[in-house]
Amino acid sequence: MSNIEPRTLKGFRDFLPEQQITRQKFMGIIRASYETFGFEPIETPALEYADILTGKYGDEGDKLMYRFKDNGDRDVALRYDLTIPLARVAAQYDNDLKKPFKRYQMSPVWRAENTQKGRFREFYQCDADIVGTTSPLADAEILALSSNTLQKLGMSAQDFVIRVNSREIITAFYDKLGFTAEQQVSAMRAVDKIDKIGIEGVTEELSRFGFSADAIKSIAGFAAIRIDDASNVSAVLAKFPEVEESLGKLVNIVLSALALVPGTNFIIDFSIARGLDYYTGIIFETNLIKAPQYGSVMSGGRYDNLVGTFSKKSIPAVGTSIGLDRLLAALEELGVTKAEKTIAKALIVNFDDSLAPQYLTMASELRSAGINTVLYFDTADLKRQLSYASDKGIKFAIMYGLNEAKDGVVVVKNLEKGTQDKVGVGDVVKTILASLY
Amino acid sequence: MSNIEPRTLKGFRDFLPEQQITRQKFMGIIRASYETFGFEPIETPALEYADILTGKYGDEGDKLMYRFKDNGDRDVALRYDLTIPLARVAAQYDNDLKKPFKRYQMSPVWRAENTQKGRFREFYQCDADIVGTTSPLADAEILALSSNTLQKLGMSAQDFVIRVNSREIITAFYDKLGFTAEQQVSAMRAVDKIDKIGIEGVTEELSRFGFSADAIKSIAGFAAIRIDDASNVSAVLAKFPEVEESLGKLVNIVLSALALVPGTNFIIDFSIARGLDYYTGIIFETNLIKAPQYGSVMSGGRYDNLVGTFSKKSIPAVGTSIGLDRLLAALEELGVTKAEKTIAKALIVNFDDSLAPQYLTMASELRSAGINTVLYFDTADLKRQLSYASDKGIKFAIMYGLNEAKDGVVVVKNLEKGTQDKVGVGDVVKTILASLY
Repeated sequence: MSNIEPRTLKGFRDFLPEQQITRQKFMGIIRASYETFGFEPIETPALEYADILTGKYGDEGDKLMYRFKDNGDRDVALRYDLTIPLARVAAQYDNDLKKPFKRYQMSPVWRAENTQKGRFREFYQCDADIVGTTSPLADAEILALSSNTLQKLGMSAQDFVIRVNSREIITAFYDKLGFTAEQQVSAMRAVDKIDKIGIEGVTEELSRFGFSADAIKSIAGFAAIRIDDASNVSAVLAKFPEVEESLGKLVNIVLSALALVPGTNFIIDFSIARGLDYYTGIIFETNLIKAPQYGSVMSGGRYDNLVGTFSKKSIPAVGTSIGLDRLLAALEELGVTKAEKTIAKALIVNFDDSLAPQYLTMASELRSAGINTVLYFDTADLKRQLSYASDKGIKFAIMYGLNEAKDGVVVVKNLEKGTQDKVGVGDVVKTILASLY
Repeated sequence: MSNIEPRTLKGFRDFLPEQQITRQKFMGIIRASYETFGFEPIETPALEYADILTGKYGDEGDKLMYRFKDNGDRDVALRYDLTIPLARVAAQYDNDLKKPFKRYQMSPVWRAENTQKGRFREFYQCDADIVGTTSPLADAEILALSSNTLQKLGMSAQDFVIRVNSREIITAFYDKLGFTAEQQVSAMRAVDKIDKIGIEGVTEELSRFGFSADAIKSIAGFAAIRIDDASNVSAVLAKFPEVEESLGKLVNIVLSALALVPGTNFIIDFSIARGLDYYTGIIFETNLIKAPQYGSVMSGGRYDNLVGTFSKKSIPAVGTSIGLDRLLAALEELGVTKAEKTIAKALIVNFDDSLAPQYLTMASELRSAGINTVLYFDTADLKRQLSYASDKGIKFAIMYGLNEAKDGVVVVKNLEKGTQDKVGVGDVVKTILASLY
């Protein structure tokens, strides 16, 4: 044996059953939420031609990409997010895709992040996007979907806040200040860091970028605006009349979203800027009230010009994205997810090799009834077999030894309650189904 | 707009909703089958240190691997199958994993195959393996799982045949012929190609390897043996007494599997050899009777020494693997899968912007009832909205225009049947649920 050391790459993880069972369960909930809103699944390749991906995420994104030459000397890269592949798909199959095209994708993406910051190099994104319409109802659906999904995952509407802004609002204000397009990008990138570095950090960064003290004061004053009730809009408009049209549009979107998911905490928050350059309309982030340290767990916005990168035609789009790992970590900390150690419900204890045919028949019957069943393969000590079941969290032990065989009975032991029933051989399935549901 | 041509790499595919809905449905069935047998999910990284993967799949495998230097100059490679990552996991977490460890994984793997042969470079495998036991009941479970899964996917037990052999049987026979270990590997690799190149091709290859005419005749005679009934065993043993022990073991495994999945066509077939060197016990392949051209759709075997590559300790294992793409293609050809074009059940027709609040409320109610609902965003022509729904295969159109609003009614149109009901605004959900289920 050559003995290669078994190990994983830094920033990459194995998910063993105790984690993966919960991950799959939550991905199933997210999928169901997306599907009730009429989003349909697609899957794109892990590898793309590098030129499809580069130049869309800024210089840092390009640096963090897993990019290499394949065996055919093609310049390729691993998927960095799910938005650019969607933009490519929307352009590539434009004629085949009925618009509006509502798709979701839940897939891993790869980024060579600095792992010392607690970041991973392989992580899942769960994205839902609407392609091919500029309708504000589409924006409202994306906002509502975000709320619905978090609620289906076990949060109440009071447990999170969806902070919404619009690039049109920001642009109207920056235009008024006379910022050039380049200055606007710099200002937005600085403001985007406000949750991480505070307004002081943003101020510093802005002055490093060469903004005047007056301009910084204006940017900061604007970024401090919060609207959590439509009745506050007029006060904001009195100070910032230039955002009348864009703010009116955003308020309507939020009211439509509220009709879809009543009770959700939507807040219009002028400090939301989003780091990526491609947004053109609404932008939003979602914070968990009791776990703010995780930052935004679901965010997105409208990007009407991105598909055009791959097409002669402009195709508008709006979407939302869940960072699954971050959200799951937060839900675990909040006690919303409870790790499930096993999917198995019943263990057939193996007392004697001569009874194997009966054990196999029982396993077959239990499984046919949809009861996930493990058959212990070896005739190990009873204690060891039972502790295998209870350590894993298997609820029922089915005990059929030589004595039971003589009497034609089976002992069904409920390992959670510590109770047991003696039942006829033909009644095992019925007995377990009755206590499972 | 820079206009980068939207395109995918050769051998890589986008799955649009019409394909992906069916893929997900079938993966869900496979997952459920694996779980009823008590297999639990794990997920391993797409990228591994190259030395974990290389040298396990033969020279050809190493050549087809996507291998590159990452940004930290590490020698890494994309996952080539799911068995080697499992072997690594079994060694790496040996102390944490309760044995027997029954895991499944359904993930893409990457191989730089020659695409002219109709092969893909990214495809899914669905594997289930049992680690940590040499019990023949584990082998029986793996065989039974394969049958159960195919039946759950819609095949009858008569639609496929599981051809089983054992490396122990082959070795006993080759030992008797006096073959060296190296000759045995060559002979097995040649016989493994019998389905593709026929016995003539195998004969040619064997003589190229330097086997004598007598030896070739013996190999061919042995590979022609088929046992589809335990009563034929004695006739085989009369000709090949050296396989008595190993064949007896295999017959018992098959009988145990039959107790789990009665009615399955298991055939002991001495021509089954499997190309990979790591198998040590049972080996099997599964063919669809009405679609033999797809080759084996589910195959595997016992590999008791592979985990030892990563460990100082030998840990036995046995498993099965579905090539999802090949199986789905075959099921589609056989008419077992019917492509579903949409997951959406209802479309809310958008007649008038002023009714948007009512449409949003209806969408919210339908979705809360679990009915996947699409709201048409624009007030387009009715014909266009209805053809959007019927082209996609959405069953119900919900029609609420200004006239219906005045009368407080909603028209629920069944687009499949061409019928329609006029119901009260509060009865839409009830009406649709009644005709959906």
